[in-house]
Amino acid sequence: MKASQFFISTLKEAPADAEVVSHQLMTRAGLIKKLGAGIYNYMPMGLRVVRKVEAIVREEMNRAGAVEVTMPVVQPAELWQETGRFEKMGPELLRIQDRHGRDFVIQPTSEEVITDIARQELRSYKQLPKNFYQIQTKFRDERRPRFGLMRGREFTMKDAYSFDRDQTAAKASYQVMAQAYRRIFDRFGLTYRAVAADSGAIGGDLSEEFQVIAATGEDAIVYCPGSDYAANMEKAESLAPAGPRGAATQALTKTATPGKSTCADVAELLSVPLKTTVKSLVLATDETNEAGETVKTQVWLVLLRGDHDMNEIKVGKVPGLAGFRFATLGEIEEHFGCKPGYLGPIGLKKPLKIVADREVALMADWICGANEADFHITGVNWGRDLPEPDAVADLRNVVAGDASPDGKGELAIERGIEVGHVFYLGTKYSRAMNATFLDENGKPQPLEMGCYGIGITRLPAAAIEQNHDERGIIWPDAIAPFTVVICPIGMDRSEEVKAAAEKLYADFLAAGVDVLLDDRGERPGAMFADWELIGVPHRVVIGDRGLKEGHVEYQHRRDSAATKVAITEIQAHVKGRMAV
Amino acid sequence: MKASQFFISTLKEAPADAEVVSHQLMTRAGLIKKLGAGIYNYMPMGLRVVRKVEAIVREEMNRAGAVEVTMPVVQPAELWQETGRFEKMGPELLRIQDRHGRDFVIQPTSEEVITDIARQELRSYKQLPKNFYQIQTKFRDERRPRFGLMRGREFTMKDAYSFDRDQTAAKASYQVMAQAYRRIFDRFGLTYRAVAADSGAIGGDLSEEFQVIAATGEDAIVYCPGSDYAANMEKAESLAPAGPRGAATQALTKTATPGKSTCADVAELLSVPLKTTVKSLVLATDETNEAGETVKTQVWLVLLRGDHDMNEIKVGKVPGLAGFRFATLGEIEEHFGCKPGYLGPIGLKKPLKIVADREVALMADWICGANEADFHITGVNWGRDLPEPDAVADLRNVVAGDASPDGKGELAIERGIEVGHVFYLGTKYSRAMNATFLDENGKPQPLEMGCYGIGITRLPAAAIEQNHDERGIIWPDAIAPFTVVICPIGMDRSEEVKAAAEKLYADFLAAGVDVLLDDRGERPGAMFADWELIGVPHRVVIGDRGLKEGHVEYQHRRDSAATKVAITEIQAHVKGRMAV
Repeated sequence: MKASQFFISTLKEAPADAEVVSHQLMTRAGLIKKLGAGIYNYMPMGLRVVRKVEAIVREEMNRAGAVEVTMPVVQPAELWQETGRFEKMGPELLRIQDRHGRDFVIQPTSEEVITDIARQELRSYKQLPKNFYQIQTKFRDERRPRFGLMRGREFTMKDAYSFDRDQTAAKASYQVMAQAYRRIFDRFGLTYRAVAADSGAIGGDLSEEFQVIAATGEDAIVYCPGSDYAANMEKAESLAPAGPRGAATQALTKTATPGKSTCADVAELLSVPLKTTVKSLVLATDETNEAGETVKTQVWLVLLRGDHDMNEIKVGKVPGLAGFRFATLGEIEEHFGCKPGYLGPIGLKKPLKIVADREVALMADWICGANEADFHITGVNWGRDLPEPDAVADLRNVVAGDASPDGKGELAIERGIEVGHVFYLGTKYSRAMNATFLDENGKPQPLEMGCYGIGITRLPAAAIEQNHDERGIIWPDAIAPFTVVICPIGMDRSEEVKAAAEKLYADFLAAGVDVLLDDRGERPGAMFADWELIGVPHRVVIGDRGLKEGHVEYQHRRDSAATKVAITEIQAHVKGRMAV
Repeated sequence: MKASQFFISTLKEAPADAEVVSHQLMTRAGLIKKLGAGIYNYMPMGLRVVRKVEAIVREEMNRAGAVEVTMPVVQPAELWQETGRFEKMGPELLRIQDRHGRDFVIQPTSEEVITDIARQELRSYKQLPKNFYQIQTKFRDERRPRFGLMRGREFTMKDAYSFDRDQTAAKASYQVMAQAYRRIFDRFGLTYRAVAADSGAIGGDLSEEFQVIAATGEDAIVYCPGSDYAANMEKAESLAPAGPRGAATQALTKTATPGKSTCADVAELLSVPLKTTVKSLVLATDETNEAGETVKTQVWLVLLRGDHDMNEIKVGKVPGLAGFRFATLGEIEEHFGCKPGYLGPIGLKKPLKIVADREVALMADWICGANEADFHITGVNWGRDLPEPDAVADLRNVVAGDASPDGKGELAIERGIEVGHVFYLGTKYSRAMNATFLDENGKPQPLEMGCYGIGITRLPAAAIEQNHDERGIIWPDAIAPFTVVICPIGMDRSEEVKAAAEKLYADFLAAGVDVLLDDRGERPGAMFADWELIGVPHRVVIGDRGLKEGHVEYQHRRDSAATKVAITEIQAHVKGRMAV
């Protein structure tokens, strides 16, 4: 490509609403252009990146035996009503009516439609396994779209769906995809982790997120530097602490803690470690009748060490706590006779169920609220001062330094951006939509499903969050808009420079290298700034003086300075610097 | 591709709602699958065809210097309000509201968005000309979607938009696109015509439709077999007939024609040629004030020869008739004192303007309604029986046998399916949206625009309408889902067949041929029927008996029988039969 036949448009300033570096750089480098909140035009430079991402994904999906289809952007509501998602999903599902008043949705994913295809097309066990995928426009009406392509409303996703005869086969299909995803993310040239994620009610380890590591990532990733253990924060298990519980050494004492409503404040006031305090969180679960009216409410007290955070996924898995909510102020006053800030499990007004984190269950001589404003109790001990808890479970987020669940060291935490997810679905959709096949005995069986997503347009943003400097983007070779840029100096004045640039351009093209010749006639400074901002990994500068000595200048986007390279050697030199 | 790794699904019967052969065959061959009215899934076999169409279009658009972008499917209404299309367009524009109640549309085209991009990005004459294109999902909420992909609601279109500094440059850009379209349609391997189309108020010849010729086409195409004249019916000019008018030879006579309300009935009753009759069409134009209220209505009488049809585009170009409507029954009775069926220009109750087709203006001794039920008048002559018409113009559709406007013979008419359109837009959108650039003198000038569409998903349907037989589709090589299919007979029983099939498959792949090996193990009859239905152009059958004699069987989809070809020659033989 020659720059004069392309479209390059860079900006000195990022738009005011660009909060994250990828959004700033994608806009400044002319990759995207905002059309509305969370809605972007892909400009020529940006579209090239997206197409390279698509091509890698498509190649590896095909290699893994998946077959490409395209499902409509606008989908009839009927199928979404079959699974109940038309009603259940929140306003992020964009619902529309056509001219005849019929309901439609703009697809955020396509489980319903692919299951509809499968129930018509996959009639026999002989047709299984089968995996269909699409690379298609999606829409999620985010309440607060932001961060450019990181949390946009219209985006492109690769979504694949596997269909199998039983769980064993489905798990094999899942593993095929998990492997394909590793190849895909390896090819992107990004640092990433495949982390175990919560798989909901299904259990097992059949849910993994592919996280691009970046300090600005929204997700906390837990991993063990000494092993291959990795999980997201929701999933990561905190190991049961070594027992037994310590013996009580202190007397139960009511202590004035005026205005100190947090564990941290109390620990500071009393000059004790934060981990000797216990925080009280009040939850509630509602039992409803068929009409959906609440007929009974159970209030729960969750106890966590003062330095720990509650993990809602883990709490939701405690028997009886599925679908919990936080208690109302009224419910809290009813049970504790006190406002939040000074709550505790001793001296309750009305009985409730107490669930303790495994750490709390083993504590002795701890501190909690006295159920009276401005007072706490110290020297609390299980058994002596209050009965054993109704349940003990892992309820907290892990913290750095916790023991790794695989026993191979301590956990560390870093930030990541989720760009892929592989997930075993089981028969959730096939049962809801009656998608069955006939087994060897001619008996209908529900299709076992898995689903597998990659955020095609999110990936370039994640790549930039991970790879940039103060001058701009630094693309990995595989997804750079161009792999090599040739920058001739004074091409309009020097026939030699022009001829050498054109020849090198032709040579790269002939070798199958994705090269751009910058024939715009920009001044060197402006030209270099453009390409550093845009982030093309390999740059070759051709100037009159160098040519006379038979050399050009090569600089990798990560190099701090240019290297003189004989013009006869430049192709081999660039190839040598390319990612394998 | 091996069939076992792909997805092949054929049907014996077409769905009941498939009215046209392309819809029937695309469904039976498993190319598409209906999801809702006018909304289709592209199944693996169909998606391959669409991708090949896309690839050809993309390659030629790039070659012609256009630059690819992608504009969102969901677009904010504000831009559409700037041009007035948000209000003016009918219900085929799908309007939606997001969770915050803001208005959006699903793009049917993207003039507004690309003009918005241009007004921000194209600031100087130095950046011109520029042509942006996208291949993107579109939606038009057709009142009655039908004919499968021919008139669907969700479809894929390639839309390009050129931006130029003045009319001369814009016309040059238009010609570049018109030439690129010829290359694209040549490459598709279809019989097509580029026909002149009406260019609205702009005039000139800067509007052409690309029509795939098919007997089932919706559009009438007018062309001259002896020259390269071709136009659509709206545009095709009927030459002014040779004058002068014949002399009056008959007396004006009122004749009873009871129950004969059409020209054809009257001509039959009176035993005269249909072309001696004149039909009366009553139109009206309304003058409105600023509030949009009608302040004055003008009624018009349009006179056409009994065997001719009115051309609404031509009528709309008669001074004063722009935006005409058909008159109401009340208006007709007020001016003629008679119901439709017996109307004529003689003996009007109230004056109106009379516009005669050029043929009618030269007629003598003609027949028209008497403005009295069940009566006509014969022997009517201009000047003698009524004043000369207020205006004379070309108001009719041409008919086969009319003289070609280029004087090179007689016109013929055939049917076509519009799959492409190139159109000079002028400054319609740039003025509405204030999209200007600075010229050499630093003065802002409106961008001159052109727009250029290709119906990517409509094209396969048009190709099938043109190329099919009773057994199924016959794809041109360029857009076939696979170019060659290898059908081994008894692959599971014969190691020789299996080995020969695998080797030939590998050889074709190595030669860059898009080949499918049918390893499904189907019986020969079912296998051949599938591939004839799907329409792969080249078929190679490998059987045990033939192999012993060193040959395989080749059959082009258009051949009536197979040909024995030495296995050593088969690759060269297939290549020889491929489209160049």
